[in-house]
Amino acid sequence: MTRKTRTIVHLLRHGEVHNPEGVLYGRLPGYRLSERGRRQAELVAETLSSHALTYVVASPLERAQETAAPAAAAHGLDVATDERLIEADNLFEGLKVSVGDGALRRPEHWPKLRNPARPSWGEPYLQIARRMLGAVYAARARAEGREALCVSHQLPIWTLRRFLEGKRLWHDPRRRQCSLASLTSLVFDDEELVDIVYSEPAGSTDPTVTGA
Amino acid sequence: MTRKTRTIVHLLRHGEVHNPEGVLYGRLPGYRLSERGRRQAELVAETLSSHALTYVVASPLERAQETAAPAAAAHGLDVATDERLIEADNLFEGLKVSVGDGALRRPEHWPKLRNPARPSWGEPYLQIARRMLGAVYAARARAEGREALCVSHQLPIWTLRRFLEGKRLWHDPRRRQCSLASLTSLVFDDEELVDIVYSEPAGSTDPTVTGA
Repeated sequence: MTRKTRTIVHLLRHGEVHNPEGVLYGRLPGYRLSERGRRQAELVAETLSSHALTYVVASPLERAQETAAPAAAAHGLDVATDERLIEADNLFEGLKVSVGDGALRRPEHWPKLRNPARPSWGEPYLQIARRMLGAVYAARARAEGREALCVSHQLPIWTLRRFLEGKRLWHDPRRRQCSLASLTSLVFDDEELVDIVYSEPAGSTDPTVTGA
Repeated sequence: MTRKTRTIVHLLRHGEVHNPEGVLYGRLPGYRLSERGRRQAELVAETLSSHALTYVVASPLERAQETAAPAAAAHGLDVATDERLIEADNLFEGLKVSVGDGALRRPEHWPKLRNPARPSWGEPYLQIARRMLGAVYAARARAEGREALCVSHQLPIWTLRRFLEGKRLWHDPRRRQCSLASLTSLVFDDEELVDIVYSEPAGSTDPTVTGA
């Protein structure tokens, strides 16, 4: 074969969201970045300023679009939208889920939790992985030979990473390595994934923060 | 989003190989289709004659190229070559592996077999899955809105299928659903995989036949 073309697709988790009431907001509208979240987005944009970004795309949710904006502006790009990058669908949307005091303590919700591998409470993991993979390959093609930035949410990014590492998709949510404003960077030689690199250019945050 | 574009990527396992001595030939040259194997390739070409094939690509090994030829000719196409579709690398290449009488009974080979999940005896499953996935997305892009045919080998096709189904990659070789000249067809809406369809247009064969 001829020489291979390297392309990098960065998966960026959005920054911190203003959510004083601790709602599991999921796909609900109206949840935007906090002041700290906006600073995180700026820090990521600074880190990426020396990178060959040619395509910036985000989940349609406000917090993802807002996180994408500084990096796109720094490269003179618009923020495209890809529905495939959206947060996982979740039946508990809008409920409070803080530990010991939330919706998960209410017995009427327990039947929905019985099969963690194929969640009856929301979008199946495999569907999440496949739609994210589709978004990544679309971005890879757009940025061929350079770099793309895809802004998404914790569960979809983590699920895709486990999928690409050949691991079972069910996992312990407390062990996700996907902090706010973190980058999970997929390195491709032509269309073949050859490496996955995780980094936290805006500093580490608690990965168990809900809302993803 | 706008209306989605459907593309189908067919993974075709090559036809029967002329191999009277039962050698595990792997990537060795000189193993070509048998008379029956050529008939199987013709039958697949007939089945695909009504399909919108616009791209035919094969592993560089003779048996794959020969299996691709009739379908390509029927659509007025050349057979492209993609190294990523090649048979898995295997240290036992060239040895006889028939049950009870082959290389696997020789004690000096046993240490290579101790970890089936990460084979020390050959190419890791995850590497196989990722290079095959790369070949599939390259073919998908080439055939966008129509169909592509990728001719490969049993272990790579089966490994990719398990990967895309979110299953662990280690498996029982006797349970592979991937007969000679079978089609494993991947259905995409835009870049997102939405279905996998298995079929045997040339009839069923014993999927445990070695040599893949």
